[in-house]
Amino acid sequence: MSVTLSEFGLIAKHFAPLARDPAALSLSDDACVLKPEAGRELIITTDALVEGVHFFANDPPDLIASKALRVNLSDLAAKGAEPRGYLMALALPPKIDDAWLTCFARGLSADQTLFALSLLGGDTTATPGPLTIAITALGTTPVGTMIRRRGARPGDGIYVSGTIGDAGAGLQILQGGLAAQEGADFLTGRYRQPTPRLALGKALRGVATASLDVSDGLIADLGHIGDVSAVRLVVEANRIPRSVALQRFWPGQEGLVRAVTAGDDYEIAFTSASDESVAAAAALANVSVTNIGHVEIGSGVVLHDSAGQTIPIVRPGFVHF
Amino acid sequence: MSVTLSEFGLIAKHFAPLARDPAALSLSDDACVLKPEAGRELIITTDALVEGVHFFANDPPDLIASKALRVNLSDLAAKGAEPRGYLMALALPPKIDDAWLTCFARGLSADQTLFALSLLGGDTTATPGPLTIAITALGTTPVGTMIRRRGARPGDGIYVSGTIGDAGAGLQILQGGLAAQEGADFLTGRYRQPTPRLALGKALRGVATASLDVSDGLIADLGHIGDVSAVRLVVEANRIPRSVALQRFWPGQEGLVRAVTAGDDYEIAFTSASDESVAAAAALANVSVTNIGHVEIGSGVVLHDSAGQTIPIVRPGFVHF
Repeated sequence: MSVTLSEFGLIAKHFAPLARDPAALSLSDDACVLKPEAGRELIITTDALVEGVHFFANDPPDLIASKALRVNLSDLAAKGAEPRGYLMALALPPKIDDAWLTCFARGLSADQTLFALSLLGGDTTATPGPLTIAITALGTTPVGTMIRRRGARPGDGIYVSGTIGDAGAGLQILQGGLAAQEGADFLTGRYRQPTPRLALGKALRGVATASLDVSDGLIADLGHIGDVSAVRLVVEANRIPRSVALQRFWPGQEGLVRAVTAGDDYEIAFTSASDESVAAAAALANVSVTNIGHVEIGSGVVLHDSAGQTIPIVRPGFVHF
Repeated sequence: MSVTLSEFGLIAKHFAPLARDPAALSLSDDACVLKPEAGRELIITTDALVEGVHFFANDPPDLIASKALRVNLSDLAAKGAEPRGYLMALALPPKIDDAWLTCFARGLSADQTLFALSLLGGDTTATPGPLTIAITALGTTPVGTMIRRRGARPGDGIYVSGTIGDAGAGLQILQGGLAAQEGADFLTGRYRQPTPRLALGKALRGVATASLDVSDGLIADLGHIGDVSAVRLVVEANRIPRSVALQRFWPGQEGLVRAVTAGDDYEIAFTSASDESVAAAAALANVSVTNIGHVEIGSGVVLHDSAGQTIPIVRPGFVHF
């Protein structure tokens, strides 16, 4: 953490109050120092958000902060980890002013309280380019209980939390590609501020055989489970959970295909051998979970219609490059 | 770590071979999982580099990679930590191609071998703006032995490793602000590829009372030790270690003031109560260390000339904003 004099003032004002964990050393040192509690290990993930790629320049700063943090917490959730804290590297373009940073820090503060975690360290630098926020989030699990992507077995059910496709439609609304109607605010809210399923992830330890969060599209992400688990995933189209709002904006089978290939859902997709244990975990976490298919011997992901016919998927998920 | 299909291919080709530590799970999951060895704790730091701010667009990709990693390792060194691994969030502009990434990964690979650490996780995304590399580095120390910035006491000596100012002059040469003469390659090399003083940092555990790495300028960085330790640091100008090359490019007292206020040295500046212990640590690490002053009751940092007169410092270090 290189700290210049004026960067020092900026950190002291906006970010030092977010360093609530003693491990952060009040952001007054070059590093944080921590140790997982006895019997636990650290789960660490990093995700960066870029203005114009992952959020709009005129999005509210507190929601940008919240999204940057939550996409990382979503990874921890999918692994069954409880969040402990995060480090944040901020590259700030010249237009960012004190009012913007005040609102940005307020968004972080609210989520820190909501999800019980602390800023642990950071770095701020100038950039001539788009605002870029790189967060590294740290969580813990009891040793050996992290839920891997590898582990799905033939015979397992496939499950997903919440509803799928909302954020994708929300993005299309924000881009001006869909006429406004009832439910638009719900969908754009799902794009701007995802909900990390932390309670569900914790409840799925020992229940899910494989898990990840849906960030690039349900079909594409299930493909990752299929690849590393060396199995085939069969998804039933008519079981995909879709919100009432989404079905209004993206109707029919075309809408369904959009929903399962759109990104930014940040729901948990997972496999399990026990429908009953999944139902108990969902009830404990107070989150809806839907059985959407099953795992077979083979490879790849297929989407079946109600007649068992394969629905063609041209582009399984969002491609950055 | 959101992984798209083509991002997946890019990771597999260039970065998966860098994930040598089993904790990285071959980069095939959403997170890495690790635990410090018994009796040790984790030291974690983050630093981001932006094209056009911290390096030049046409710098060799392997040196850009090396610098991005080493500025983080330098923070670990100053804390007395031994590196374990790092996570990297890359924002790549459209111009970055496969050849560039191949060379970039080669730079990381060489430094991983040199410093005995592994890539543990990462994220790659597109950016319309400058190449941005955010690294979070993890190291360990025996519990309670991390060297803090807070801890300098009146009566301590002030020390610095290596030589000061080389990187600042190297930057000026690269910017075309200095005519080429003998020693230019040495100075630009010091700017492009700093040397993290890991062996020295480890040897300074229990010896240094306060420590940090010099990234923004010696006087500015010593100011941080003074602030958090609540002491005054008196630096003797004629003791500042300067390379022969630097004295050619930046001669006289004006050159000296430039040297102690230029950034990017990545040497370790520290305080200690024992000259003998410092000499032993320097010998063990095979690094030159120079006593450059002493700590007093009071506040701030002053630079004294050989007559004991204060040399005025207009700008104590590099200011990003």
